[in-house]
Amino acid sequence: MMRAVVMRGNRLVVDEIDEPTPGPGQALVETLACGICGSDLHFLQHAGKMGAMADGEGTSYDPGRDLVMGHEFCARVVAIGDGVTGLGEGDVVVSMPVLATADGLATIGYSHEYVGGYAERMLLMAALCLKVPAGLDPTHAALTEPMAVGRHAVNLSGIASGESAIVHGCGPIGLAIVSALTRSGIELIIAGDYSEARRELARRLGAHEVVDPKQEPAIEAWRRLTGSDGSVVIYEAVGVPGMIDQAMREAPRSGRILVAGVCMEPDTISPIVGIRSELTIQFALGYTPAEFSETLDRIAAGEIDAASLVTAQVGLDGVADAFEALRNPDEQVKIIVTPNS
Amino acid sequence: MMRAVVMRGNRLVVDEIDEPTPGPGQALVETLACGICGSDLHFLQHAGKMGAMADGEGTSYDPGRDLVMGHEFCARVVAIGDGVTGLGEGDVVVSMPVLATADGLATIGYSHEYVGGYAERMLLMAALCLKVPAGLDPTHAALTEPMAVGRHAVNLSGIASGESAIVHGCGPIGLAIVSALTRSGIELIIAGDYSEARRELARRLGAHEVVDPKQEPAIEAWRRLTGSDGSVVIYEAVGVPGMIDQAMREAPRSGRILVAGVCMEPDTISPIVGIRSELTIQFALGYTPAEFSETLDRIAAGEIDAASLVTAQVGLDGVADAFEALRNPDEQVKIIVTPNS
Repeated sequence: MMRAVVMRGNRLVVDEIDEPTPGPGQALVETLACGICGSDLHFLQHAGKMGAMADGEGTSYDPGRDLVMGHEFCARVVAIGDGVTGLGEGDVVVSMPVLATADGLATIGYSHEYVGGYAERMLLMAALCLKVPAGLDPTHAALTEPMAVGRHAVNLSGIASGESAIVHGCGPIGLAIVSALTRSGIELIIAGDYSEARRELARRLGAHEVVDPKQEPAIEAWRRLTGSDGSVVIYEAVGVPGMIDQAMREAPRSGRILVAGVCMEPDTISPIVGIRSELTIQFALGYTPAEFSETLDRIAAGEIDAASLVTAQVGLDGVADAFEALRNPDEQVKIIVTPNS
Repeated sequence: MMRAVVMRGNRLVVDEIDEPTPGPGQALVETLACGICGSDLHFLQHAGKMGAMADGEGTSYDPGRDLVMGHEFCARVVAIGDGVTGLGEGDVVVSMPVLATADGLATIGYSHEYVGGYAERMLLMAALCLKVPAGLDPTHAALTEPMAVGRHAVNLSGIASGESAIVHGCGPIGLAIVSALTRSGIELIIAGDYSEARRELARRLGAHEVVDPKQEPAIEAWRRLTGSDGSVVIYEAVGVPGMIDQAMREAPRSGRILVAGVCMEPDTISPIVGIRSELTIQFALGYTPAEFSETLDRIAAGEIDAASLVTAQVGLDGVADAFEALRNPDEQVKIIVTPNS
């Protein structure tokens, strides 16, 4: 048996569950660190709709069954299944949260069959495990997943040298986008958030200008700083209804909007606004294996200020409270769960 | 004085108005043919919102003032203003519906200051006039404008050889898209419309498969014909609420949606659907001067079956009834107004 934070209906409870056994090609790992993602908060609140999101990925949510979330993890191998090579006991790894099974792909952290990182131990697919360089703090390595989301969003947006960027929302996704934009050499990054603490983090990660939208909308700052000259890509990383419409209304002609914020509810837009300015809206999800791997390398190289993103660490007993704390954006950005500490 | 169909509030009335005088760089032309556009129907019905659409183009609508619509025209030069070279009396021309004035750009057909093609005579900017090749029927040359919209939408979508196309709606915009796709050599074009007459036209213009969405949604036809293999671009040319959401729900992973239908009302989408499949939504408006000019050439070369698109011709006295008739998609596609016949 092992301890885990179990999602039971819409509650999180610490319980004892069976320890998994590694099958062929799998590794049993002990979870060293696992970040709490905004999607986990969404999932706890709106699980039915998220179940729909996972359709076709081999995962569908049944509210009558337990589930252990956690998909931003760093872990240490404790046992390997048949046929695993190149990986052994003691290796510290990160992995994309995916497991190929006889029934298809399972998404670790949103699967009834395979527990996620809010448990003392879990199963990974050995072939997806990337070894974490010696000396890298597991709580920083666990940021590989959320930071890769930013790298992917920036890559997908096709932003080019000489273009400016506006980032709406400085939660983990917005900050990951700011960090990726910085590493891409974008020379004007304007980030907006109501929280002063998050704005400060955006600046530390490379934003050249940060704004409180109540004081000055980001698009106004862009006009002030550029005289409305040149091209701007708008990254939507808030994920609440109305944000896409807002981005459409502020986008200049031929403007591009990259939607990375996950809005679970229906949302209203004005198509005529998109037509008038010939806008492009690109939705982004996840990352490629190459983006995931590159992000680990950048964290290991110290090019991503991982330490500043981690605002708290909790054990399994603290997860439920941590979910509550994350609803206040002024207090927390990334809380790391350390199930075995 | 001259006769014109005047938009007065939300009514169309035939009235006598002052004949314009060509200023420097302008040509006075007699309107030979002018198509009625779906945007004109929208404008008559929703002028307030369309006024907003024209903001920044030097045109804003005042319901207390008369306006003469008509922006898809072919005309004959009857007089030229100072400084006009290369254009003379008797030349038959088409032009993008734009006029540069001391006050900025005016959109011909949506301007209080400059009448559009539902009048016996109008002013054009000589520099924008393209001479219509001898022998080309003015009612066909007048299709340059709407057919250029299709060319632009297809160009903007970036559809590539080997990709398939779905076109929702076989009104003039949808048909223009079908025609442009055909000329681009796209090998599978699936067009959907509830009207049998319009489906038949889509087939004549090059659609390989036409469907009645009540019988078989276009995306089902695409699956049937391709086994869901390969990439598909979805063109939305219906322009009513719900169509963008429908296109998003049916689009395959990494699908591209080109929105050419002008939906004037707020519209609801599900962002999570866009995120789940990493969709791109591109909104399209108008055309470039090069696309406009190329379209005239293609009509003149007989590569666009213009004759089949023109379903009726009316004089100025018939315009109000023609607007009504166009609300029934089974009867009419493109009605051409001939103000001087």
